[in-house]
Amino acid sequence: MVSYQPVNPVSTILVHGGAGAYSHQLRTHAAEVRQALADVLGAAAGQLKDGAGAVQVVTAAVVAMESLELFNAGYGSALCGDGSVELSAALMRGGDRAAGAVAGLRTTSHPIQAAAIVLDSDQVLMVGDRADQLAEERGLEQWENSAFVTGEQRARLLARPLIEENRGTVGAVCLDASGELAAATSTGGITGQPPGRVGDSPLIGAGTWADSRVAISCTGDGEAFVRAGTSRWLAALVEAGTPVAEAAGRALEEVASLGGRGGLIALDRAGGWTMPFTTPAMPRGVWRDGDAVDVAL
Amino acid sequence: MVSYQPVNPVSTILVHGGAGAYSHQLRTHAAEVRQALADVLGAAAGQLKDGAGAVQVVTAAVVAMESLELFNAGYGSALCGDGSVELSAALMRGGDRAAGAVAGLRTTSHPIQAAAIVLDSDQVLMVGDRADQLAEERGLEQWENSAFVTGEQRARLLARPLIEENRGTVGAVCLDASGELAAATSTGGITGQPPGRVGDSPLIGAGTWADSRVAISCTGDGEAFVRAGTSRWLAALVEAGTPVAEAAGRALEEVASLGGRGGLIALDRAGGWTMPFTTPAMPRGVWRDGDAVDVAL
Repeated sequence: MVSYQPVNPVSTILVHGGAGAYSHQLRTHAAEVRQALADVLGAAAGQLKDGAGAVQVVTAAVVAMESLELFNAGYGSALCGDGSVELSAALMRGGDRAAGAVAGLRTTSHPIQAAAIVLDSDQVLMVGDRADQLAEERGLEQWENSAFVTGEQRARLLARPLIEENRGTVGAVCLDASGELAAATSTGGITGQPPGRVGDSPLIGAGTWADSRVAISCTGDGEAFVRAGTSRWLAALVEAGTPVAEAAGRALEEVASLGGRGGLIALDRAGGWTMPFTTPAMPRGVWRDGDAVDVAL
Repeated sequence: MVSYQPVNPVSTILVHGGAGAYSHQLRTHAAEVRQALADVLGAAAGQLKDGAGAVQVVTAAVVAMESLELFNAGYGSALCGDGSVELSAALMRGGDRAAGAVAGLRTTSHPIQAAAIVLDSDQVLMVGDRADQLAEERGLEQWENSAFVTGEQRARLLARPLIEENRGTVGAVCLDASGELAAATSTGGITGQPPGRVGDSPLIGAGTWADSRVAISCTGDGEAFVRAGTSRWLAALVEAGTPVAEAAGRALEEVASLGGRGGLIALDRAGGWTMPFTTPAMPRGVWRDGDAVDVAL
């Protein structure tokens, strides 16, 4: 399960649950993670068969993963060095490149829904308290910051750096029946990060990108993904005629040349897809119309 | 004064004072803006002749422009809708792609110096109060937010949208004697923007980029520049062999296809440079070793 180039494009969705170590935590929860990804893909499959658009489908997939303690996004996010949670997300639609992103949220329960509100506004990126306020004004559920904190993430913060890092950012890319592409990414960042730090996930062209040719969601060492301009460069390679799997491999080599590891999911307008990673594990899955859901860690 | 391709690379610096309308404000202050850009370039020329590196030179050039009420960065920045000031900046070094950026600053007098601190850290982007705190801890001068506000910017906010928008972001790109490239951008955003809004300036690969081949600083309709992945795409074109002037023109066409106008300055490792813009005006200037300072509006 690495990549695929179909003859005819059909509705397709890919999801990831973050590139990282094949950690004790991941081994312990392997069956749950597999089931969660299968459930997310199953729900997306139903939506796509019902004619849902790519933006709606990736948003719903990420909302589902944000809800689960298993993933580092929304509830169960990694903790900053001060024990608080800061959340970031981005959403992009391929056809018109409409984009919305949020960073440094502290109270919005589903950051990807805040990104969707920004996508429909005159802005592209909103940060901090004001982004939470916007989300609240638009009716998104707000939590106390401590409500995002799980015992497992508290233990990870205390045990750092003795335990393996497991980034666990979540993402989804989709090609719908109309040929529209979309990408979504959501994250709680890195365990122990300084509050105020923003990685690649909410940055259009770094961790998240969609245009009329390809949709991409990245996960891994965020700073290296930013310095590589990873997803925008991958898209430029696809635009220049490079097959998506080859372009994705080159993009991860570029990240590696800057000292970073991670993975990504990428899907082109013909339905070709790839899910490479340079870490020991990256929970991931794919569904395309006519096939069964396929999940791997 | 549009572009130039030299035979041999020599120390070169380009600066811009923001793409926008040829406004009443710009016409009124034309002589001062020309003098300011000439002074900035003159100081940079002296530093380059003394062996200063590209990062040091672009940082100093942007610090100087942040200090001046004439430009929309640091003191004299555009006001948010609530009358406050929020500041963003980015800095990137070409050779190793070290990058630092800050967004949503409210008290740090020189945002580009905060970006320089982030460049030397494990992070790439820091936002909000925590970025100001980091800057303060590292000794950077802090101001009351109201100290950034000028009467002219207050008048612009009150007169909006009756007066012409003048973006006025500042930026600099430099090739030093060792062949190192660097880029820096600093901005107060758009008059009347919602607090929390972040544009392209502090986003690596959107408004600011440097690698071993080219250094770029953009200005204009920030959201369109983000959605175009402007500077990262321009760099990909240069990497693929497109001359920098042609690549820059294509990048601005890409921005225009998304409904955005603006300009950029770009400098390649051979000393070739270009300063295109699709707005009526973009205060700009260039100095290369052996030539006189050249400034235009």
